[in-house]
Amino acid sequence: MSNKSPTTAICTSDEHSIHVRGADLVEDLIGQVSFTEMMLFQLTGERPTRTQVRLLDAVLVTLMEHGLTPSAIVTRLIYDSAPEALQSAVAAGLLGVGSTFVGTMEGCSALIDEMLAAPEGVQARAVQIAQRFREQRRALPGFGHPIHKPDDPRTPKLFEVALREGAIGQHIAALQTLSVEVDKAWGRHLTINATGAIAAVLGEIGMPQAVMRGIAVISRSAGLVGHILEESENPTARWIWHTVEDGIAYTGER
Amino acid sequence: MSNKSPTTAICTSDEHSIHVRGADLVEDLIGQVSFTEMMLFQLTGERPTRTQVRLLDAVLVTLMEHGLTPSAIVTRLIYDSAPEALQSAVAAGLLGVGSTFVGTMEGCSALIDEMLAAPEGVQARAVQIAQRFREQRRALPGFGHPIHKPDDPRTPKLFEVALREGAIGQHIAALQTLSVEVDKAWGRHLTINATGAIAAVLGEIGMPQAVMRGIAVISRSAGLVGHILEESENPTARWIWHTVEDGIAYTGER
Amino acid sequence: MSNKSPTTAICTSDEHSIHVRGADLVEDLIGQVSFTEMMLFQLTGERPTRTQVRLLDAVLVTLMEHGLTPSAIVTRLIYDSAPEALQSAVAAGLLGVGSTFVGTMEGCSALIDEMLAAPEGVQARAVQIAQRFREQRRALPGFGHPIHKPDDPRTPKLFEVALREGAIGQHIAALQTLSVEVDKAWGRHLTINATGAIAAVLGEIGMPQAVMRGIAVISRSAGLVGHILEESENPTARWIWHTVEDGIAYTGER
Amino acid sequence: MSNKSPTTAICTSDEHSIHVRGADLVEDLIGQVSFTEMMLFQLTGERPTRTQVRLLDAVLVTLMEHGLTPSAIVTRLIYDSAPEALQSAVAAGLLGVGSTFVGTMEGCSALIDEMLAAPEGVQARAVQIAQRFREQRRALPGFGHPIHKPDDPRTPKLFEVALREGAIGQHIAALQTLSVEVDKAWGRHLTINATGAIAAVLGEIGMPQAVMRGIAVISRSAGLVGHILEESENPTARWIWHTVEDGIAYTGER
Repeated sequence: MSNKSPTTAICTSDEHSIHVRGADLVEDLIGQVSFTEMMLFQLTGERPTRTQVRLLDAVLVTLMEHGLTPSAIVTRLIYDSAPEALQSAVAAGLLGVGSTFVGTMEGCSALIDEMLAAPEGVQARAVQIAQRFREQRRALPGFGHPIHKPDDPRTPKLFEVALREGAIGQHIAALQTLSVEVDKAWGRHLTINATGAIAAVLGEIGMPQAVMRGIAVISRSAGLVGHILEESENPTARWIWHTVEDGIAYTGER
Repeated sequence: MSNKSPTTAICTSDEHSIHVRGADLVEDLIGQVSFTEMMLFQLTGERPTRTQVRLLDAVLVTLMEHGLTPSAIVTRLIYDSAPEALQSAVAAGLLGVGSTFVGTMEGCSALIDEMLAAPEGVQARAVQIAQRFREQRRALPGFGHPIHKPDDPRTPKLFEVALREGAIGQHIAALQTLSVEVDKAWGRHLTINATGAIAAVLGEIGMPQAVMRGIAVISRSAGLVGHILEESENPTARWIWHTVEDGIAYTGER
Repeated sequence: MSNKSPTTAICTSDEHSIHVRGADLVEDLIGQVSFTEMMLFQLTGERPTRTQVRLLDAVLVTLMEHGLTPSAIVTRLIYDSAPEALQSAVAAGLLGVGSTFVGTMEGCSALIDEMLAAPEGVQARAVQIAQRFREQRRALPGFGHPIHKPDDPRTPKLFEVALREGAIGQHIAALQTLSVEVDKAWGRHLTINATGAIAAVLGEIGMPQAVMRGIAVISRSAGLVGHILEESENPTARWIWHTVEDGIAYTGER
Repeated sequence: MSNKSPTTAICTSDEHSIHVRGADLVEDLIGQVSFTEMMLFQLTGERPTRTQVRLLDAVLVTLMEHGLTPSAIVTRLIYDSAPEALQSAVAAGLLGVGSTFVGTMEGCSALIDEMLAAPEGVQARAVQIAQRFREQRRALPGFGHPIHKPDDPRTPKLFEVALREGAIGQHIAALQTLSVEVDKAWGRHLTINATGAIAAVLGEIGMPQAVMRGIAVISRSAGLVGHILEESENPTARWIWHTVEDGIAYTGER
């Protein structure tokens, strides 16, 4: 079918060495770069700037933990059912990093890119986008939060850190411009949520939209390991099971 | 069944804030700690030392990438089949972080703990362990490597970094003692492999054995996202499929 | 958030009995219905007709096996990596039952429903659909096959079995009408593939479009268990790994 | 590494046909065999007897549904988080078919095999096994149930169906013999649970112990698709999430 001989630029190894993106893992990387630097290097093939590392760290720290989310509940239940396979419990939880909660990151990033590329300028396109979504009564990706009202506290912090650490700020400014127009179009304030803010910050460091969701996956994998450790010491899974089973009434006949 | 009201010490949130392990995510963590520091803090509830952070970084960097491993192949195939769900591709690859390749980390860690707790001392117990495995002709977890011969290059580097960064070195020393006795019992040199070295280094920073495999899961999740980005730009999945299909002969009748 | 007390009509149990959709599992179902009948009953809450059972059996038999597909390769690799958790190997393979190969079933079903609901009649709408896809140069879901040319052999068989077993044939006829118009619009013959045929046959038995992909998931889960049994007796995973690793050239520097 | 050229006896295909285990899928199988017959044929390479089909049907029907189990809860939460990928929701739920609930099937099957192979006879070995587990205070796989007391209603039904449908009954008789000895050793009645009964029934049809857990995986995959359909029409996921989040108290500081 595809006859072309396939290639990879990521990694190769032999008896004596492992090379990642042209660097010697043992000589050049272990003990010299942080995990976050290594991620950016493996992903892009270029040594990251200090700004890129700090911004990615901020994003990973932001996304890692939000308590008993659906992903954390899933991981705890699967760990209880299959403790022989810790990797299964993490994988099951990660399957929840889908379109409902995290997919809006990609949607928001697409809007930012649309504004930045618009011949008529960011401001004019922001007006257009806000009106378009309002008229179609569609949810605007990156805006609104069910709990954090009126404002998601993570958003201003992420922007502050990004600018402090040397981001140019073009993506952030575009999203803030959109936010002003959104408030006008809706006639009330919608918060930029953390997912929206992260789309802007990842845009600042050139993270490809295709793998933005992957950053959430990496961060959550760490959070879920923490939930497994707690579950192993202080179990909740049986309580969750029985509470859910007892709380959902059977309406079939008996 | 379990009537006790369940608790968590990891995270809580309200309209205005998110608290992780007693710290305010926005005020105290975002922009102030690296992802690796955040992991250790969420996992243990205590602010990590610089040594702990450096050693965990070294371990995460070591485990992240080893080229076209079974996990990377799986992630690439699933991404091609279900590009709508990047998280599925990562989760599928992580399901390969199982007993065959990474499970030996826990086994090696258990041997180190056994030596350190032995009333007769590390050396005497190391002799015993080496003889026990040799007599039972069992594979010794943490020793031997199919490709990296005579020595896994990652092992001495990990030990060097650990000691340079302030590890006490008890776990490392115990594993090195065992290595000497293993070579005697086998009558030839077996390398301490990276998985074994990591068991010792994670022991140095007090990582609970129950979640050591989780560290590999976190690290690999980052590596797999890199493979997805490359796959999206330079596909290999169809070549893999057809090469495998063509290479495995059908022996049933037609 | 959602205050309404949730309900289920599927199943309840107590010390002495398990009820599924109002039937007593032990008294009314075990030993009296086939697995396929049970599926339809659990899914719909109504005892299936003989026609429904026969058609669903035909679909499940059709989808179960197609050799060393990406899903089967994935299952074999994960089984080798984590033999302690057979369920992981099946789950990993099922993650490949995504939009690329099976998602076209839903797309084809939507086209059939569109034709059947069209005020201007099936034939007129079929002309329109064929032209629409042709002009937009979009792949038509349910049509074409990379290997099975000029015709997918499963398609006529599925239609024959469906009609023999008492299907009314409305969905099948609509798809056949579309096929004629597609050949005209493309100026050459495109086969109705098995996925398209299955969309029509599942339409005949009233299977909701929302879970059509689920039928493929169920069927493939059985196929994948067969691959695990063979892998446990006659391994291929290490050969797959090394063949892929050796066949993909590293283009980074060393 | 492994130089031997790998083979498969399961399936091959070309432009015009698909062969499974030497049979032509289109000519010999679709419309002629049930899903359960197809499973046995693909798994073993031999056309199953009527007894084998009936017993496997009984087992699959038994295992398919038990209400809001951890697997069903997980599937519903993941479906809500990633509705774009129904396969993920099923896969996540299946990851719960692990050692805790279903793994006992393999353990019970091993005990039955041990009794049947014992030179001193089934009865004598049953006495021994019961005493061994009792002395070591270990849970006996296949015995006891948290809800179904004093007896699991599925067990006598499965045995009755098996014998009615022509099973020889050796495995069932061995398990019943063990049950008598268990009651003596424990000084009270322990039920043979469904998992134990299924181990015996699958033994009657020659199902390899290595894939017994796979039978549960197949059956549950069907049950989980039913839960997805209900969830799409009558959601419970948000209620589950908020009930769990509200019910687990945060004990860290704020």
